[in-house]
Amino acid sequence: MIGNVVYLDNSSTTAVCRQAAAKAQEMMCTCFGNPSSLHTLGILAEREREAARAILLKALGDPAGELIFTSGGTEANNLAVLGGAALRQKQGRHVVTSMTEHPSVAQAFDRLEEQGFTVERLKPDESGAVPVSAVEAACRPDTVLCSLMLVNNETGAVNSIEQIVPLVRKRAPLAMIHCDGVQAFGKMPFSVKSLGVDALTVSGHKIYAPKGIGALYLKKGVRVRPQLYGGPQEKERRAGTENLPGIAAFGAAAAALPPVSGLPEKFLELKTRLLTGIRDIEGAVPHLPQNHAPHIVNISFVGLQSETLLHFLAGREIYVSSGSACAKGRLSPVLTAMGLPKEQVNSAIRISLSHQNTPEEIDRLLVALHEGADVLIRKK
Amino acid sequence: MIGNVVYLDNSSTTAVCRQAAAKAQEMMCTCFGNPSSLHTLGILAEREREAARAILLKALGDPAGELIFTSGGTEANNLAVLGGAALRQKQGRHVVTSMTEHPSVAQAFDRLEEQGFTVERLKPDESGAVPVSAVEAACRPDTVLCSLMLVNNETGAVNSIEQIVPLVRKRAPLAMIHCDGVQAFGKMPFSVKSLGVDALTVSGHKIYAPKGIGALYLKKGVRVRPQLYGGPQEKERRAGTENLPGIAAFGAAAAALPPVSGLPEKFLELKTRLLTGIRDIEGAVPHLPQNHAPHIVNISFVGLQSETLLHFLAGREIYVSSGSACAKGRLSPVLTAMGLPKEQVNSAIRISLSHQNTPEEIDRLLVALHEGADVLIRKK
Repeated sequence: MIGNVVYLDNSSTTAVCRQAAAKAQEMMCTCFGNPSSLHTLGILAEREREAARAILLKALGDPAGELIFTSGGTEANNLAVLGGAALRQKQGRHVVTSMTEHPSVAQAFDRLEEQGFTVERLKPDESGAVPVSAVEAACRPDTVLCSLMLVNNETGAVNSIEQIVPLVRKRAPLAMIHCDGVQAFGKMPFSVKSLGVDALTVSGHKIYAPKGIGALYLKKGVRVRPQLYGGPQEKERRAGTENLPGIAAFGAAAAALPPVSGLPEKFLELKTRLLTGIRDIEGAVPHLPQNHAPHIVNISFVGLQSETLLHFLAGREIYVSSGSACAKGRLSPVLTAMGLPKEQVNSAIRISLSHQNTPEEIDRLLVALHEGADVLIRKK
Repeated sequence: MIGNVVYLDNSSTTAVCRQAAAKAQEMMCTCFGNPSSLHTLGILAEREREAARAILLKALGDPAGELIFTSGGTEANNLAVLGGAALRQKQGRHVVTSMTEHPSVAQAFDRLEEQGFTVERLKPDESGAVPVSAVEAACRPDTVLCSLMLVNNETGAVNSIEQIVPLVRKRAPLAMIHCDGVQAFGKMPFSVKSLGVDALTVSGHKIYAPKGIGALYLKKGVRVRPQLYGGPQEKERRAGTENLPGIAAFGAAAAALPPVSGLPEKFLELKTRLLTGIRDIEGAVPHLPQNHAPHIVNISFVGLQSETLLHFLAGREIYVSSGSACAKGRLSPVLTAMGLPKEQVNSAIRISLSHQNTPEEIDRLLVALHEGADVLIRKK
């Protein structure tokens, strides 16, 4: 807790942890060289960059893999989708994704469509996950790209990537398989090796590193067409002076995470406390995916606009999100695609947890939710 | 000076100033909201972003202009060139640039060429600047983009943008005029209004802000096609959660700069001291553009490989660059385009100044250069 603040919007962004902030500071003020410089200061910066890369690859479960640092999850997702498809377009122009992807994946596919690719956008089931059988059915010999997220940013629904990958490999042997892992990394245990994907996106500011840094993991040998042009940085795959404070802080934040294996249990405890506590609020409809990541909880309070409740809570220094922060002011396409009635889409709020959240914070949220439901619905 | 270090590689990157580092810290740890979030923390972050934008637009000389924050100079240059041409391709497919541009401009033009644009790459004169008459001659009614840098990163040669712009407007009324201002911003006085350009690139880490942040200035009403797809950030012109620590620190660094009007004189004093001091070094050939930015000094030490001298100086904690850090290990295309003999290209080092450099530091460099010329040439 920061002061009196109850921050439950950790899937939007997080406060930078002490270790990452200290590392960023060091890189800004002391170890400030440009890794492209040939002198000592450049070499020291290069070393920090490689140390961060090694930490992240290990955390992802493939120390021998590759990692391209980007300016964030959006650039990494764009690079995977646009760069992955561009390099394979001679093999085929059929690509597969879902209707629940983050806008940085969804809109990259819109671009592919403009470029003449045939885009298959799979509908989620009512729990928000993409049915395994639908992915299998969509894949074809000329499918060159399949991109599905691991954890949905709005609902916490988990796609069965481990089951999906072998089916895609069988039906679409040419396809690069990309996974947006932004909401999963550092929050639940997974390994790129067991998922079996070719590429996976991660973002710093969702795991207590600063905003402005992300990365695209690539299985050794997997290639994408660069999307930024200029200097030879990142083995000529991503031009531009590297964001060393961001990169080194990303590594420091990953190293400072508590053991990920223990997190789901902790999150589940908080989630259960929350769900138990809202049972007697009239109109409260939690959206509970069958297979869910317990750090994201989406609840509709039918009869209340999301924003009204959000501001009521903010007035009490309790911060949650109305759907996804990335879709500010727009109706959630994810909840809509899941087939929820409009009054539930309009009244959904997302509570997203960090390992630093406490049962007491959930209790403060519960008190405020009860008050809110009481005051705001009565006022209408 | 940091410890015993003499840092004379300020056109590669700079140490982050105290004010910018403090601001980045604040944005990482306290004001850490996502500007896309609707609650208080999001709003506070949004305010910081807009404050930084206002500072930068004022420093650029057009408070009513627009600014798209990017991950650095490379992304901003790519956005201007690729996004500027893409939006105008129905009007024409002829574009103009020079042979001395930064790789992030040069390679973006290579991409345009692949896309079917006709690219005119103008040769510099022997002083490194692009002749005004050559630009005029190259422009045509179907020219849709003209991109020329203000200050060359390797030689400090200054292009006469103010004279060039009216000629381009006359001969190519449809053209968007872009200028890479990365090496000029914060180092010499200029205003986007007097230059008359439509778009101008700036980078944070060249002016004591952190790496990983840059911006593309756009004259009000000038449009470019976005190059990153996803959320509606930056008025739907650049998707991705904003790098708030970088953005706010960029503003803080710009605000903390000494009055730019006084800088050229200070730089010139240091430059003159340096040039006077090397007169008696055999083989020292300074490259002195007619119209030069005094914070960049390029000198060949014929008979010495750039890297050998660079490492000799680094051994004395004096840091300079061999040509441009962005072209690590490659022969400088800029010096080559200027028509310099190969032995001068191979032996060129770049000394680039900050307002924090002192005459004493130049003297330390001079002592080391004399020793280096003596020891290294004798050794051969």
